[in-house]
Amino acid sequence: MFGAIEAGGTKFVCAVGDELGTIIDRIKIPTTVPEETMAEVMAFFKKYDLDAIGIGSFGPVDVNHESPAYGMITSTPKLAWRNFPFVQALKDAFSVPIGFNTDVNAAALGEAIHGAAKGLDSCLYITVGTGIGAGAVVQGKLLQGLSHPEMGHILVRRHPNDEYQGKCPYHGDCLEGLAAGPAIEERWGRKGFDLVDQKEVWELEGYYIAQALMQYILILSPKRIILGGGVMNQKQVFTSVYHYLQELLNDYVSLPDLTEYIVSPGLGDDAGITGSLLLAHQAFTEENRRK
Amino acid sequence: MFGAIEAGGTKFVCAVGDELGTIIDRIKIPTTVPEETMAEVMAFFKKYDLDAIGIGSFGPVDVNHESPAYGMITSTPKLAWRNFPFVQALKDAFSVPIGFNTDVNAAALGEAIHGAAKGLDSCLYITVGTGIGAGAVVQGKLLQGLSHPEMGHILVRRHPNDEYQGKCPYHGDCLEGLAAGPAIEERWGRKGFDLVDQKEVWELEGYYIAQALMQYILILSPKRIILGGGVMNQKQVFTSVYHYLQELLNDYVSLPDLTEYIVSPGLGDDAGITGSLLLAHQAFTEENRRK
Repeated sequence: MFGAIEAGGTKFVCAVGDELGTIIDRIKIPTTVPEETMAEVMAFFKKYDLDAIGIGSFGPVDVNHESPAYGMITSTPKLAWRNFPFVQALKDAFSVPIGFNTDVNAAALGEAIHGAAKGLDSCLYITVGTGIGAGAVVQGKLLQGLSHPEMGHILVRRHPNDEYQGKCPYHGDCLEGLAAGPAIEERWGRKGFDLVDQKEVWELEGYYIAQALMQYILILSPKRIILGGGVMNQKQVFTSVYHYLQELLNDYVSLPDLTEYIVSPGLGDDAGITGSLLLAHQAFTEENRRK
Repeated sequence: MFGAIEAGGTKFVCAVGDELGTIIDRIKIPTTVPEETMAEVMAFFKKYDLDAIGIGSFGPVDVNHESPAYGMITSTPKLAWRNFPFVQALKDAFSVPIGFNTDVNAAALGEAIHGAAKGLDSCLYITVGTGIGAGAVVQGKLLQGLSHPEMGHILVRRHPNDEYQGKCPYHGDCLEGLAAGPAIEERWGRKGFDLVDQKEVWELEGYYIAQALMQYILILSPKRIILGGGVMNQKQVFTSVYHYLQELLNDYVSLPDLTEYIVSPGLGDDAGITGSLLLAHQAFTEENRRK
């Protein structure tokens, strides 16, 4: 039996289950400060006899096993969590193998094994919500190089009629700065769910996301793209994405029908927590191989 | 002993050597039509008793082993080579395992094993010349998904003072359309080597390449970036790249010193042919494993 944590900026989801994605218990915990939040996490897991725990965490995190900061949340704007030794804290409490990656890499893994990219050795999972993040499975493994991807901050070309300055504290009008939830709210002066009938809002959203997908496709060539997160609940954004992406790519690369290639998460809101169970399973398997 | 082909749009380089990168014989053949060019390739290799042949080819090519078009050059503008069954032609003539990938993936592999990224399990190789292409090694393997990467065609933001319309037949002002050799020549009215003293030419070049590197870094997080190709022989472009990339990333991701992170090919012009020898070696090893 495995434990899983989907650690988000506003809430933690903890679950107990198996690598098939079966969940037998779960809990939501508000993200406050590590002392409080983690105390509740520990109390929840203590009820079970776990073989391993998997963490899909908000970031940036250090996922490089050779780094002294491995397993830590690093330069997050959430100051209480900066340099929090996530892996070590759980190892100290449970003495089991701990899997650790970004929330979006966990979700990509969940979707690749049990969700919309089941059976494929490659997929890209993107969440468009409070922020924009993406994780990828490449040739069967979670994408990792020097660090984990930070795909939400790529550059896009501004729409000629869009005068909104952008909200990213680092890059101003990068993708996240122009297209995440807070940017939508600030640009149009209302929250997304009050804008449902404003066609131009979601058309523009698709305009920016399509550009991002063009870059991801030309660079990574994923076998399927999964678009999740609160903003993507506006299904009209998909229509806009298909339209602009077709126009941008101009048949340069051959892709499956876009409506089958770019889809919603097969696991709905459970992509991240399912992926975290898989991270636990991977950590467990690896530990046993080492023995 | 292995054979290697670096198949370019204007010339083929063929070599005989080993997986350590030692080359004992090589030849250059102009790229005309398959009947002519391949006849010379065959004649060159017939002199040797080869265990396998590796091909790093101009593209697009089909590198998907499960595809019926595997081993072919596909939709190239060089009409005589369209649908040329590269792998099959060599298999028919030599009955040895054939390794096959893009020219830039071959070069990335060469640099990862014997060049500027030696000892790393990840690197990105970019060539800026007649076209712009890139290959990548990710977690020790050549990057491949639905197809091979087509990174030269990503979108960049135009410089506000650049009025050149771009030269890409598919996307107009994508990276290749704005920054490859032919675009430089058309924009400034002279060939690159007549523009060596025009600081603004290379500054603008760096402006576009830096944007591309930003996207590549945020998406792939390579452990080292190797910038080759004719245009990059203008070392002043590196200075401009470092400057703009620093500005664009704004310390959002932590990178090694840029002058050590973004470098020239360690193998010089031999990255591609060395990588093709390694593709031969891989094909040979795989074939033996299967037996």
